Amino acid sequence: MEGIKVIAFDADDTLWVNEPYFRESEMEFCNLLKNGMSIEEVSEELFATEIGNIPLYGYGTKAFILSMIETSLKITKGNISSEKIQSIISLGKQQMNKSIELLDGVVEVLESLQGKYKLIVATKGDLLDQERKLEKSGLLRYFHHIEVMSDKKEDDYKKLIQHLDIDFNEFLMVGNSLKSDIIPVLNLGGKAVHVPFHTTWEHEMVSEEELQKAGVSEIQNIRELISIV
Amino acid sequence: MEGIKVIAFDADDTLWVNEPYFRESEMEFCNLLKNGMSIEEVSEELFATEIGNIPLYGYGTKAFILSMIETSLKITKGNISSEKIQSIISLGKQQMNKSIELLDGVVEVLESLQGKYKLIVATKGDLLDQERKLEKSGLLRYFHHIEVMSDKKEDDYKKLIQHLDIDFNEFLMVGNSLKSDIIPVLNLGGKAVHVPFHTTWEHEMVSEEELQKAGVSEIQNIRELISIV
Repeated sequence: MEGIKVIAFDADDTLWVNEPYFRESEMEFCNLLKNGMSIEEVSEELFATEIGNIPLYGYGTKAFILSMIETSLKITKGNISSEKIQSIISLGKQQMNKSIELLDGVVEVLESLQGKYKLIVATKGDLLDQERKLEKSGLLRYFHHIEVMSDKKEDDYKKLIQHLDIDFNEFLMVGNSLKSDIIPVLNLGGKAVHVPFHTTWEHEMVSEEELQKAGVSEIQNIRELISIV
Repeated sequence: MEGIKVIAFDADDTLWVNEPYFRESEMEFCNLLKNGMSIEEVSEELFATEIGNIPLYGYGTKAFILSMIETSLKITKGNISSEKIQSIISLGKQQMNKSIELLDGVVEVLESLQGKYKLIVATKGDLLDQERKLEKSGLLRYFHHIEVMSDKKEDDYKKLIQHLDIDFNEFLMVGNSLKSDIIPVLNLGGKAVHVPFHTTWEHEMVSEEELQKAGVSEIQNIRELISIV
């Protein structure tokens, strides 16, 4: 790949484990609420509330806690104890306090690319939550800065790349989400490398058709990035 | 003021009205919860919960809603109806959907400074919430970009100014909060102009002593900035 000036890394499930923690919290939430409903039904209701709240709340753990509380009020028709609401808040706080588990190959690839390119983190989610995770990860020193984005659509990347004062084709995005990290960047004329992660949130799924159209570069371990760029 | 390259404006209560909306929501919350407690007592409990949650949640409306729910569980000792919790969530959502009321002189000052300096917004709060407010304000076109900061302490400004690739004394911050907009910037060797707003959150208060030490430039209307810079 030629002419790259900035390499942007997605954070959650690209640099460190994230989605499984959300799924664990969701499972605990479903178990807390399942009285009379199946886990799948609770999970579907939660997903619908989350999607409905994205325009107002955006992404991240605080939005997730608020959507869990709202779902709990809805599916119990208001017949829920304060203890359970307290448990939902605690669930969210615990998740925010989780330690960081780096993914295999991450330190190696950052060590290798550092100094050759401007490296940044480009992530969505709660601002403070993402900054805290980066701090805890020990990876802070590899990055010029962190960009927490309210969403990862084409317009958001356009703003980001303009703010970086580079051309679209000088930008390489590395991430696990085809929908949020790869396709919008390719559509703008930027470069992108997909590193799949075993768990993907339903909201981040894309169709086979979209994939084939985009012509995505995929690697199985982030380490392979070293030989690509 | 000489050698300024970037002028950063705080947003809430500097460009537009904000704190009175939080106080309105707080008043409604206190009225909802006051059974057996005075409004002042409820308000004090809420403030204590908010301050306790800042390290985990940061600033902004989602943090505010979560702290209101937590306070309601605490002060009622769990004896609260689901309807009231639903009302708290609605209160927060309504606040997020409020229209934007620009402060007097703001458009005039931005019109005048645009093109002469790089203008940015430097604000704390929810990322999406602040982006939405800027969008709704109609002021987007005046600014190079918006920086949503997880906090506004010296270290946060240091990162911001380094990211802008300028020297500290080429940075001018304009805002209503002495604690968050003025004192940390002056301490770093940056420039700062204070535009007081009639309502200040208790968390943002500073002592007379700190003020005198810092030697703050104060203006009564943001319009006066034009003749200062």
